[in-house]
Amino acid sequence: MGRVAYVNGRYVPHDHAQVHIEDRGYQFADGVYEVVPVVDGVLVDEEPHLDRLGYSLGELRIAWPVRRQVLRLILREMMARNGLERGIIYFQVTRGVAPRDHKFPAKAKSSLVITTKRLKPPSAAILENGVAVSSQPDIRWERCDIKSLSLLPNILAKQAAHEAGAFEAWLVDEAGAVTEGSSTNAWIVTHSGEIVTYPKGQGILGGITRQSLLQLAATRNLRLVERSFTLDEAKAAAEAFLTSSSAFVLPVTRIDGEVVGGGKPGPVTRQLREIYVANVDAQIRAAK
Amino acid sequence: MGRVAYVNGRYVPHDHAQVHIEDRGYQFADGVYEVVPVVDGVLVDEEPHLDRLGYSLGELRIAWPVRRQVLRLILREMMARNGLERGIIYFQVTRGVAPRDHKFPAKAKSSLVITTKRLKPPSAAILENGVAVSSQPDIRWERCDIKSLSLLPNILAKQAAHEAGAFEAWLVDEAGAVTEGSSTNAWIVTHSGEIVTYPKGQGILGGITRQSLLQLAATRNLRLVERSFTLDEAKAAAEAFLTSSSAFVLPVTRIDGEVVGGGKPGPVTRQLREIYVANVDAQIRAAK
Repeated sequence: MGRVAYVNGRYVPHDHAQVHIEDRGYQFADGVYEVVPVVDGVLVDEEPHLDRLGYSLGELRIAWPVRRQVLRLILREMMARNGLERGIIYFQVTRGVAPRDHKFPAKAKSSLVITTKRLKPPSAAILENGVAVSSQPDIRWERCDIKSLSLLPNILAKQAAHEAGAFEAWLVDEAGAVTEGSSTNAWIVTHSGEIVTYPKGQGILGGITRQSLLQLAATRNLRLVERSFTLDEAKAAAEAFLTSSSAFVLPVTRIDGEVVGGGKPGPVTRQLREIYVANVDAQIRAAK
Repeated sequence: MGRVAYVNGRYVPHDHAQVHIEDRGYQFADGVYEVVPVVDGVLVDEEPHLDRLGYSLGELRIAWPVRRQVLRLILREMMARNGLERGIIYFQVTRGVAPRDHKFPAKAKSSLVITTKRLKPPSAAILENGVAVSSQPDIRWERCDIKSLSLLPNILAKQAAHEAGAFEAWLVDEAGAVTEGSSTNAWIVTHSGEIVTYPKGQGILGGITRQSLLQLAATRNLRLVERSFTLDEAKAAAEAFLTSSSAFVLPVTRIDGEVVGGGKPGPVTRQLREIYVANVDAQIRAAK
């Protein structure tokens, strides 16, 4: 069986999955998306992802394309049809197809497109050595809390980081604060043991893994602080790491070519990854 | 003959014109566009529009989908197939289809999609009475000089203005300056007769009609100033107007419900519209 995509009610061969040229996602970036990790055939943090989808849709006043419970069923059907055991499921919702006009169309039915992708876990080498990040200016719009398709600044930052030999871009705002990565959240651990990440708000996307980790760590007497930190503070930190739905927790050991935390993943980062992976395992056990 | 769209080398019925779901325009807003006015079957300011397309593509390092001269021929074929005498021709170029990944794909062929739309000139009533604008916060990213598909903030502003009973949104930045409209450029005429519009740069899109008008007015001894102006200055101005490729020059007679310039189009606005329309007429004569 070949790879299958879901497009507005139909399961179609991925290679032939198409949308109309006047889908507002294509002409205006007028839509939102989610990426949910799949481990052992189980959707991880599914409900928080669906909650966030609802938030993004609500902020843009886009209707749910199908009821939430139906979307849950379609996600499972997509995993089954694609034999997805480990990877991600991507879904995007746009305001639908309408003659091009900036104003919201009077009549349009939200579009729903879903794809799956197999992904291996991060390699042992990456977990042992950490990844490099490259600082890039945060030139995004002021509603980064909405997980919108308006990702042009993110891809430009990711590409610039890639060309600088880095795995990810860390975005630095005009005030000098590291807000987040181009598709991940950014964290440091101070020498006094504080775990620091930029506060939730319109300046960053409220990452689901970020949120889960904050909750998990809070129950373990770890010291968490949501505040802004500068690039210099990050470079001088005891540890640095990033979180995302697909990579979970990844140690960051170089920032703009400078070694962080001795160039090896630190104990707090390791502990947090273990805590998060244990949480994923618990979700899998609960689902089976 | 029904309406025809152009999609990556093929002329197809508009209703069935589709692109792949992994076109980066659909997933990342990774593309640019142009809207060229058509009057009496002639493309107005075609070369400046193609120049700007080249600029936008260059800034994003997206390859031309076809050579410029070929694009010129396709635009003409599209006008002929759609019997387009008066309206606009819309074309967008994206980085192409590739498996979803923020980084630029190693191999992808730029996508080219073109549509046409018939449009009537602004009504006599609009030209006599002017239009209303509503101020909205300018929350866009920092590269507004690129005519990208990343239009989500623009449509939100346009919709908010529409719901406030206005024709257009005027975007106000953090410093209090009116930068431009959601899809038009913003201008005022001071009581001393200066014609003022926000300076070209990364803060606004360099409108083609804006640029043509600046050049045309410069040859007529009109006093032009590219500088920022506040909303209060605009409300107290002698005249206000907006420019765009489809509307040319439109008087603005209300800002946030307050009457500007006595509520009627002023003499400078009328003169500039006449100058611009005469320039369009000259282009049509030259082309025939």
